[in-house]
Amino acid sequence: MSNELDLTKRETFRQWTYDKLRYCDTDRQGHVNNAVFATFCETGRVAFLYNPEDPFAPPGTEFVIVRLTLDFRAELRYPGRVDIGTRLLSIGRSSFRVAHGIFKDDTCHATAEAVMVLFDGKTRRAVPIPESLRARLEAL
Amino acid sequence: MSNELDLTKRETFRQWTYDKLRYCDTDRQGHVNNAVFATFCETGRVAFLYNPEDPFAPPGTEFVIVRLTLDFRAELRYPGRVDIGTRLLSIGRSSFRVAHGIFKDDTCHATAEAVMVLFDGKTRRAVPIPESLRARLEAL
Amino acid sequence: MSNELDLTKRETFRQWTYDKLRYCDTDRQGHVNNAVFATFCETGRVAFLYNPEDPFAPPGTEFVIVRLTLDFRAELRYPGRVDIGTRLLSIGRSSFRVAHGIFKDDTCHATAEAVMVLFDGKTRRAVPIPESLRARLEAL
Amino acid sequence: MSNELDLTKRETFRQWTYDKLRYCDTDRQGHVNNAVFATFCETGRVAFLYNPEDPFAPPGTEFVIVRLTLDFRAELRYPGRVDIGTRLLSIGRSSFRVAHGIFKDDTCHATAEAVMVLFDGKTRRAVPIPESLRARLEAL
Repeated sequence: MSNELDLTKRETFRQWTYDKLRYCDTDRQGHVNNAVFATFCETGRVAFLYNPEDPFAPPGTEFVIVRLTLDFRAELRYPGRVDIGTRLLSIGRSSFRVAHGIFKDDTCHATAEAVMVLFDGKTRRAVPIPESLRARLEAL
Repeated sequence: MSNELDLTKRETFRQWTYDKLRYCDTDRQGHVNNAVFATFCETGRVAFLYNPEDPFAPPGTEFVIVRLTLDFRAELRYPGRVDIGTRLLSIGRSSFRVAHGIFKDDTCHATAEAVMVLFDGKTRRAVPIPESLRARLEAL
Repeated sequence: MSNELDLTKRETFRQWTYDKLRYCDTDRQGHVNNAVFATFCETGRVAFLYNPEDPFAPPGTEFVIVRLTLDFRAELRYPGRVDIGTRLLSIGRSSFRVAHGIFKDDTCHATAEAVMVLFDGKTRRAVPIPESLRARLEAL
Repeated sequence: MSNELDLTKRETFRQWTYDKLRYCDTDRQGHVNNAVFATFCETGRVAFLYNPEDPFAPPGTEFVIVRLTLDFRAELRYPGRVDIGTRLLSIGRSSFRVAHGIFKDDTCHATAEAVMVLFDGKTRRAVPIPESLRARLEAL
């Protein structure tokens, strides 16, 4: 499914959040350090899934990221802010995949894909995604 | 080639460096934040490629990371240090792939793969990897 | 002069900027790690002094921070953003002092004072602040 | 008491720990970003006070940092590691002061002073330091 989507286009994403660049995000090469992009993805994931009033993860379970793939597409320069788009790609039995696009102005600086698994907080094992959560994720 | 390697085993790696965990690496879930693993990979890459006396990248060129894939395998707890193994996976025309294994004590906490491209500093385009660099990378 | 000012009040500051809190700013105690406040102060300083079109520091000189004092006043919780107020406190021969207030909603979470020195980029020694720069700083 | 001590000398400190510099600690000025020094101080504080087998803070209480003063003394360059010395300066009724020295090779890059207060975890108010804790801190 991700093959059919162009993650470098803003119109691919409907869920948006942002991060403000910090001076210390830069490194001595002069641009924003590439590890900070993992943080941008986390900001996108949290905005996508975090709802303190009505949590996505059923009681006793939690989402755990098991894989993150980052494609760096352009050097990112301080100062400014990045817009972070997030989109559901697919849902499996106990996992789902989301895509991110990191934009500054009109330029896509990175795209990413994250695989999240629903874990039982006690057994630390993957558990099936309940239908209600599946429906809610698909609605995003 | 990476399919044949077990990146979760210490014996897969010959090049080693480390990072010391910092209290601020933890997040409110109590473990080391997953974005910090991108930094551990950078530490591994830099130790692998950084040689101030005899730089790997030919004059006027530089290595740029274009893709990073992180597989999170176990929660990482503060305090302590992580051992970071790095290994060349393959060399293409203007790019090469390296693998990382992030270990604490006897546990592999993450594995990763990075794709690096040799760029011309002025034209910002990929350039072929010279034979001398190819030989040097293969010797690692 | 700072003794007469109440840095915990928003009305003490006229120059404002902000930082957006990031999930990784938290530590395992559950709140924003105290070292991140030094970054908020940097954000305030940069917003105060950074003007790419018309730099404050004369050619060949640069501002260097020589002292930072942070007073932590309240636990800071994710998510949200902090408003960062900055104000000139005093100007000496080659240095000046600024104060910061870090606010979230109506609560002052920290105040700070920074001493900046004007350095010659080559000799790495303090140089007197020119009259034009002095006037410009006082105008802030 | 701190006036009598030369915090820029290694011999002033008996308690030592270290941090390994990371590439992302640098900023676009080419040196280690000044906010990272607050992290080095935290590393020193934690090494000074953290003892999982026999915690310093009595049950139901915790140490909270209320003030941190950093004096930046020299530009810090990547790569390498910093040695962090920590020393008790004085103990008050419910607070104590520690000093830090941040060294790389033979150079002191920063000194710092932190004020810690013992807080009741529930009331969030300062509580007196018990005699046993006072003796233990003085023994350091």
